[in-house]
Amino acid sequence: MGEARQLGGGDRAVLVALARSAPDLAVDITEVDPAEVPNLLRGGRLDLALVHEYDNVPSALGAGLDLEPLLVEAVHLACPASWNPDREITLGDHAESRWILANPGTLCHSMAVRTCRAHGFEPRVAHHIDDFAAVLRLVAAGAGVALVPHLGVDHLPAGVRLAALPVGRRTRIAYRRGSADQPLFAAVAAELHRAAAAFRADDGIRLDENS
Amino acid sequence: MGEARQLGGGDRAVLVALARSAPDLAVDITEVDPAEVPNLLRGGRLDLALVHEYDNVPSALGAGLDLEPLLVEAVHLACPASWNPDREITLGDHAESRWILANPGTLCHSMAVRTCRAHGFEPRVAHHIDDFAAVLRLVAAGAGVALVPHLGVDHLPAGVRLAALPVGRRTRIAYRRGSADQPLFAAVAAELHRAAAAFRADDGIRLDENS
Repeated sequence: MGEARQLGGGDRAVLVALARSAPDLAVDITEVDPAEVPNLLRGGRLDLALVHEYDNVPSALGAGLDLEPLLVEAVHLACPASWNPDREITLGDHAESRWILANPGTLCHSMAVRTCRAHGFEPRVAHHIDDFAAVLRLVAAGAGVALVPHLGVDHLPAGVRLAALPVGRRTRIAYRRGSADQPLFAAVAAELHRAAAAFRADDGIRLDENS
Repeated sequence: MGEARQLGGGDRAVLVALARSAPDLAVDITEVDPAEVPNLLRGGRLDLALVHEYDNVPSALGAGLDLEPLLVEAVHLACPASWNPDREITLGDHAESRWILANPGTLCHSMAVRTCRAHGFEPRVAHHIDDFAAVLRLVAAGAGVALVPHLGVDHLPAGVRLAALPVGRRTRIAYRRGSADQPLFAAVAAELHRAAAAFRADDGIRLDENS
């Protein structure tokens, strides 16, 4: 397939799997601000995008888009491994901890604040970092605790413990309304579903060799 | 030191080292768009920031800031390990390759375009990704080649070869003019210099266990 298709959005592990599994499909990947995705799709600057929502933060994409479920993953509490190593970690244990949150205005920020409030406390925010790899390195360094979706844990640094919470993140493929049936888009979507299935089969977290 | 100080900017490895080495210094770290850093400093929303410039892309921070050199690192060409494994890789070999660049408007995008042009070719851009970890995973997946600064290679995926180029990236500490002598800021700067020295001693690249 010679024609380049524009794919945008956040789910890097799936994008990488796509690049690996479909080398004969010329897909141009662009990392964009999630807030811009709906308008880029509606304006024809992107053909497909991966969009997220959390159980406690529904997405607000506006009209003119078609959405197709791709995968669901758990959200983990990440805390230093030295923290009460003899027993399970729970969210309620961290009401007094320093927290690392994404920047205000992001889905991840809303999810973390709402999850903590549902457990009866307001997170004491020490750091604002959007990048999950950097968040996990800060957790490993003892700078705080954080909530990260499973796909955000591409590489688990030594010294970090994870506990899955009953909060899910859903990833969906977004198209301009009525365009999902176009053969090239359908081919890209088929590769994305294949990559998501492979991700589900292999949970995708690689442990640091020091852990 | 009880008072929180705001530190912004891009150099995650150094920020993590800071969090690790100075647990008694309450520094709030915020990841911000590099383009916003000068105004956040001038407006008092950040106290210190780490700012970058490349040899071929001088920074344009505007007036009202003081700058202090922190570290210099090499820029690497990253390409799939399967690419001519028997000999050194050079930039000129990749005039026809597919390229992964940062988004237009970033220092990294300008650096890559100028470096390629200085070698007599215009990069054929396949993907626009700002996150270096995602860039390296796409290189490993065979999706293209890229230029990444040394600190961007926190974790080298299996299947990627690096070749240092004669292009450097400089990181500097930026302060509001006249504020560098304030004791709390000086203490944070001293920790950053300690972290940078540790980074120079240990080159900081961890190899994937599969490589």
